[in-house]
Amino acid sequence: MADPPVPALRAIAAGLEGGTLTCVGLVEGLLDRIAALEPEVRAWAFLDPAIALDAARRIDRDGPRGPLAGVPVGVKDIIDTADMPTGYGSPLYAGHRPPRDASCVALLRRMGGLVLGKTVTTEFAYFGPGPTRNPHDPARTPGGSSSGSAAAVAAGMVPVAFGTQTAASISRPASYCGVVGYKPSFGLLDRTGVRPFADSLDTLGALARTVDDAAWFCFALAGRPAPDLSADPGAVAIGLCRTHEWDQAAPESRAALETAAARLSALGATVREVSLPAPFRNLWRDQKRIMAVEGARACAAEMNAAPDRLSAPLRELIALGEATTPDELDQALDRAARARAAFPAVMDGLDALICPAAMGEAPEGIAATGNPIFSRVWTLLGVPSLAVPGCAGPNGMPVGVQVVGRYRDDARTLAVAALLEGALSEG
Amino acid sequence: MADPPVPALRAIAAGLEGGTLTCVGLVEGLLDRIAALEPEVRAWAFLDPAIALDAARRIDRDGPRGPLAGVPVGVKDIIDTADMPTGYGSPLYAGHRPPRDASCVALLRRMGGLVLGKTVTTEFAYFGPGPTRNPHDPARTPGGSSSGSAAAVAAGMVPVAFGTQTAASISRPASYCGVVGYKPSFGLLDRTGVRPFADSLDTLGALARTVDDAAWFCFALAGRPAPDLSADPGAVAIGLCRTHEWDQAAPESRAALETAAARLSALGATVREVSLPAPFRNLWRDQKRIMAVEGARACAAEMNAAPDRLSAPLRELIALGEATTPDELDQALDRAARARAAFPAVMDGLDALICPAAMGEAPEGIAATGNPIFSRVWTLLGVPSLAVPGCAGPNGMPVGVQVVGRYRDDARTLAVAALLEGALSEG
Repeated sequence: MADPPVPALRAIAAGLEGGTLTCVGLVEGLLDRIAALEPEVRAWAFLDPAIALDAARRIDRDGPRGPLAGVPVGVKDIIDTADMPTGYGSPLYAGHRPPRDASCVALLRRMGGLVLGKTVTTEFAYFGPGPTRNPHDPARTPGGSSSGSAAAVAAGMVPVAFGTQTAASISRPASYCGVVGYKPSFGLLDRTGVRPFADSLDTLGALARTVDDAAWFCFALAGRPAPDLSADPGAVAIGLCRTHEWDQAAPESRAALETAAARLSALGATVREVSLPAPFRNLWRDQKRIMAVEGARACAAEMNAAPDRLSAPLRELIALGEATTPDELDQALDRAARARAAFPAVMDGLDALICPAAMGEAPEGIAATGNPIFSRVWTLLGVPSLAVPGCAGPNGMPVGVQVVGRYRDDARTLAVAALLEGALSEG
Repeated sequence: MADPPVPALRAIAAGLEGGTLTCVGLVEGLLDRIAALEPEVRAWAFLDPAIALDAARRIDRDGPRGPLAGVPVGVKDIIDTADMPTGYGSPLYAGHRPPRDASCVALLRRMGGLVLGKTVTTEFAYFGPGPTRNPHDPARTPGGSSSGSAAAVAAGMVPVAFGTQTAASISRPASYCGVVGYKPSFGLLDRTGVRPFADSLDTLGALARTVDDAAWFCFALAGRPAPDLSADPGAVAIGLCRTHEWDQAAPESRAALETAAARLSALGATVREVSLPAPFRNLWRDQKRIMAVEGARACAAEMNAAPDRLSAPLRELIALGEATTPDELDQALDRAARARAAFPAVMDGLDALICPAAMGEAPEGIAATGNPIFSRVWTLLGVPSLAVPGCAGPNGMPVGVQVVGRYRDDARTLAVAALLEGALSEG
C-alpha cells in the first residue's frame, strides 16, 4: 500500500480554519481510496457517499466548529447511528434503525466531526467474524472485534475510527493492522447507545494512525483538553512486563517487546523488569468467565427469540456463562478485585508498563480473529492501554507493543505511548 | 386502601404447581384492581389486558416453569420491551418500539414470569415527573423516578416491579409508598436494554411488598439461589448511622430510625452508633456532579436533536454537567474512590447500617418527586440498600428505614432488612 494522504486530526481543523483544506475535498479523497480498496478489504458495514458528502458540505458551509471540526470518523457497527443502519454484526439486526445516535456519535457531531460510515464488527463485538481482510495481506484476519475500524484506518480510508474492547477488541486488531489502538480507562468515554456485551468490561476507544490522533479524539469526546504528550525520556520509568502468558507469545511479539525496551533505554528512559504478582496468574480466565456470564445475560433476548441465528462461538460462550455457578462467578470477581487493588503497587515508581499487544502477527484466514490472551487482564483491570505499531513479523506483517498505565492516568500512559511510537518509528 | 389479595412470589409458583391458582386468575384479579384504582393512581404508562392475559394463558397452558413461574411484573418504562411501547418518560420516545426485550425482561420471561405492563417513570429516570399519584394520598407524590413501580406495588396492582436507581429512584418512592425498595449491589443485575442515564451509577432493582419477594425476584434474575433471610437477632450487629445529612431529616424520619434501632435492640441485636468518616462529608455533592456529567453525555443525542423537548430540570442538570471542568470531575471521582475504599472500615464488625430512607413523608403535590439526599451516597458507593416500610409520619403517610450493606454482600443485607421488616411490623 502506498502511504495514504490522510492528515492528522489537528491538521484537519487547522486546514479548514486556514482555508487550505475543505471537508468535501478531504472526504472525496477518502471515498476515492475506499472505492479503490474496499472490494478487497471490506472494512465497511455501511457507507453511503451521499450521506458523508452531505455532512461534509454542511461543515464547509457553516465553517469549522469544535475540536473535531471536519474529522471524518469510522463508527464501529456496534454503535448506534440515527442516519445509518446499525447491524451489531448480527443477521438479527440487519437493517436495524436505532431512533438516536449513540452519545459518542452525538458528541462527535457536536464537536464538528462527521460519520463517514459504519465499520464491520464481529457479531455483537464477540468472536463471530465479518468479511473484513487485513489490508497488509488479504489472506489474513484484521483481528476483531473492531475489525473494520482497524482495517479502514490501516488502509488510509479514514483517519480515526471508534472501537470497543471487552477482551482485546481494540488492541489486537490494532496490532495486526499496524495502527494505534487506544482503550481508555473504563468510564472515560460514555457508552450510551453502544450495544452492551459485558457491562463491567465493555470499553469505548479508538483506532487511529498516531497516538496523538487517538489522544486528541478521545479526550475531545471526554470533554477534556488534549493531553501534553511530550515527555523527557530521561525522566520516564518503564516496566518491562512479559506477563504470565509469555510462553504464548510468538517470537515476533517477544522480539517487538525487547526492541521497544532497547529503544526506550537508548533514549534515556529507565526500563526495569516487572513481574505481575500472584493475583495476576490465570487472571485471564477470570476475565473470560465474567465475560461469559455477562455476555449470556446481555444476549438473553436474542437467545429467547432466535438462538439458531447466533453463531456457534457465541452460543458456546453463552453456554459457559449459563453453566457458571454463583460461587465460580464470585471467586472470579473476588480475584479481579484483588488484582485491581494490587495493581498500584505493581506500578510503584513506574510511568507505564510495556508488554505484548498480541500473540504475534495476524494469523492466516478470516474465519477467526485471533487470540485475545494478551489484553484480557488489562481490560479486566479497567486501566488505559494502547497498542503501538512499529515492529514487524517474519511475514512482514505488523506487530504492536502494548503500553499499559494506571487507572485514570490516561495522559501519562499516552505520553509513554507517544515516546514509544517515536522510538519504534526511528528503526 | 383495603389490603389487596396479592400473594407472595413463592406462593404463586407453589399455587400454580399445586393447582390452587391459575395465572389467568391471578392476572384477572390484578386487572380488576387496576381497573378500580388506576384512574386515580395512574401508575401505568402502558397496560394492555389482552397482552397480559395472553401471556398468563400461555403459562397456564404450558405449566409453571422456573423460579418466577406465573409472576406478573410491572416493568419501569425506562426498560425495553419488544411487545409493548417503551417511552422512557419522554415525549421524544412516545410510542417507541425497541427491537428486543431488555435482558432483565428476557430473563424474567425465561424464568416463567410475565410482563403485566409498563410503569410510569420520570423523564429518562431523572426528575421530570409523570402523572402518578401516591396510593396512600392522591394529593402527594409517589416519589421517583420509579414512580409507577412503587405506586403499583403499593396499590396491590402487581406483586413486584422493576425499578432503577441513579440517585434515590428506588429507595425514595419505596419509602413514600410504604413498600420495599431493593437496590442490589452495582452489577448484580444486567442493564442491557435499560436506558442509561449515568453509567457508573445506574442500578437495576425491584419494588416489592416484602423483603423476601424482592430477594427472591432479584436473586432469580441474577441466576442465584434465593438467599437465606433467617438471622439470629442475637448474632446481628447493626450500625445506627444518622449520616452527615441528619439535619435534613424530618422528625418522622428521625423517629423511624430511632424506632428501628429500639426494635432491633429489643429483639437482641447489637445496635451501635456509627459516624461516617471525613470522606463521606458532602459526598452527596460528588454523586450529583458525576450524575450531571454522565447524564449530560447520555442525553447528548436528545440535546442535539430536540433540546426544547427536554424538561427544564433535565436541561439544568445537563448544563451543570457541561459546565463541570475536568478537574472538578476528577476530584469528585477521587473522593468517591476514597469513600469506597473507606467503607469496609466503617462496616467493621457490623452486618449492616440503618439510616433514613428519605427526608420524611411524601411531600404534597405531584410536580416534583422529592429530595434524593438520603440515598445519593449509597448509590455512589454501589453498595446494596433497601428501604423497609413500617413507620408512619404525622399525616399517616408511610415512612421507610434504609438498610445498607457491604458491596456484594447482598444476602446478609437482605437478612438484616428482613429482620427489621419483622421488627417494624410488630408495632
